[in-house]
Amino acid sequence: MMDRLTSRIAEMASPVVVGLDPTPALVPEWVIMEALEECGATPEGLAESYWRYNKAIVDAVCDIVPAVKPQSAMYEQLGVPGVAVFEKTVKYCHEKGLLVIGDIKRGDIGSTSAAYAAGHLGGFAACGVKVTGFDEDFATVNPYLGTDGIKPFVEVCREHDRALFVLVKTSNPSSGEFQDRLIDGRMLYEWVADKCVEWGEALPGERYDGVGAVVGATYPEVGRKLRERMPKTCFLVPGYGAQGASAKDLGVYFDADGTGAIVNSSRGIIGAWKQEKYAAYGAEHFADAARAAALYMIKDLRENALTKHAGGAV
Amino acid sequence: MMDRLTSRIAEMASPVVVGLDPTPALVPEWVIMEALEECGATPEGLAESYWRYNKAIVDAVCDIVPAVKPQSAMYEQLGVPGVAVFEKTVKYCHEKGLLVIGDIKRGDIGSTSAAYAAGHLGGFAACGVKVTGFDEDFATVNPYLGTDGIKPFVEVCREHDRALFVLVKTSNPSSGEFQDRLIDGRMLYEWVADKCVEWGEALPGERYDGVGAVVGATYPEVGRKLRERMPKTCFLVPGYGAQGASAKDLGVYFDADGTGAIVNSSRGIIGAWKQEKYAAYGAEHFADAARAAALYMIKDLRENALTKHAGGAV
Repeated sequence: MMDRLTSRIAEMASPVVVGLDPTPALVPEWVIMEALEECGATPEGLAESYWRYNKAIVDAVCDIVPAVKPQSAMYEQLGVPGVAVFEKTVKYCHEKGLLVIGDIKRGDIGSTSAAYAAGHLGGFAACGVKVTGFDEDFATVNPYLGTDGIKPFVEVCREHDRALFVLVKTSNPSSGEFQDRLIDGRMLYEWVADKCVEWGEALPGERYDGVGAVVGATYPEVGRKLRERMPKTCFLVPGYGAQGASAKDLGVYFDADGTGAIVNSSRGIIGAWKQEKYAAYGAEHFADAARAAALYMIKDLRENALTKHAGGAV
Repeated sequence: MMDRLTSRIAEMASPVVVGLDPTPALVPEWVIMEALEECGATPEGLAESYWRYNKAIVDAVCDIVPAVKPQSAMYEQLGVPGVAVFEKTVKYCHEKGLLVIGDIKRGDIGSTSAAYAAGHLGGFAACGVKVTGFDEDFATVNPYLGTDGIKPFVEVCREHDRALFVLVKTSNPSSGEFQDRLIDGRMLYEWVADKCVEWGEALPGERYDGVGAVVGATYPEVGRKLRERMPKTCFLVPGYGAQGASAKDLGVYFDADGTGAIVNSSRGIIGAWKQEKYAAYGAEHFADAARAAALYMIKDLRENALTKHAGGAV
């Protein structure tokens, strides 16, 4: 699965993943009001507005990006109707040919981790019932519980040809509180990085192994060090745009051939209609604004993150 | 909310939380088959069997324990129908007077953490729609992302009178891979413990603050050290029974007055009907077996974990 992502990025020359993180503030009011009128002023109605918003954005970007990343929290916030829209969104993205990274950041142990993995990456069968669950292609996973938490995910990935991104160094200001602590000459995130490499060996890929790493765009020096330290690990890079990192910072996250990283933008793309730069689209054409912002981001990365590489192309 | 839990434990003299973690192997076959016959051999049918199993167990234990802890993974494994049973279970437990600890181990940053918190601990309102989400009383949270990940949870807890248990030292064998790393004279889990104390100060309680700690029963020496280090922190203690810890190990997790900890058992109680000790109940009376196992655990903790304290009572 990681090889599939890498090929798709290269074919489309687009190392961009669109974060599908709807909130009541990002979904245009007219979309919400239409949905509430039809479905009632209920959580179901709000969830329906998320679905319509997602569908329009997916339609607008599915030919220019290889993957999307729905953030579980935004759907769980609406309770069961929200979670149902998460599932529906994953299915629709697959119909449109997109790979789906479930940003679920789960992390538990043993049979509990196995249950999360089955629920999100491939399903299981019991008592003659086949369950597919949420069926993403990738999931983000939290490493705090150690190997016991990751192994069950790796086993499900092997069985169903899926892959992971493990949190290594996150993009937020306080990520250093624990992640940057120095332990016997290595930062904690480096210990986690080294374990990721080890876990990935159980899911060998042609170019990158099946255990990727989340490495925040806001710490380019860390990105550079980890790129060298993890030659067979693909990076999922949050923090571009809204969180402050620019394309110029991101060259070091890529390998010399322009592969090895996929950069996320959520608000910057799906909320583009609210930015001055794309205001001309208006709330009505929010999906066109998202497409324009995605095209800008792809161009920005090609020109500013990938120019250090021969040809500048991914 | 943490004070409420502490009072309930003391009133019932029962520092026990029952883990509601159904799996196809724990739910008796006759319960599954009945549900599949009525609802079809579908994920909905399996979910219905989980619901019936949970309801029977809740009915059997609600007068002897203060709280239950449904594990999100087991429900997510069944996709949307499973998540709907999670919600239904929380609601039913509240009707029966139980406190509910959502074992969700979420952890993210900023607005994403806030969305998880709203979805699980109190809800929110937007565009005239009131959303209550899953509505647990407590949630377990992962600390790897630092203060940015915890603060939004703390704010929601303050607004809605809820509380948290942050993962500090987990019960699994590989928990030491990262958690036991020594950093400037303190283990990583001690750094996390100290942060928990700090985070808890924003949710002051009469006896214990609103940020509790998950401390595994399988490391009693750690429990003893952390009990001294965190005088205003209540512990959620997994690992009794099935994972190998005995009541004798658990005295050190409690304060001198017998408060300060609640011990979880999942399989040991809900799967009691499968143990030789409770075999006489048979699969038919699985809920009575669960009650018997819960009563045994309460007695075991009173006699062996709390006897170091004057009177031996909680």
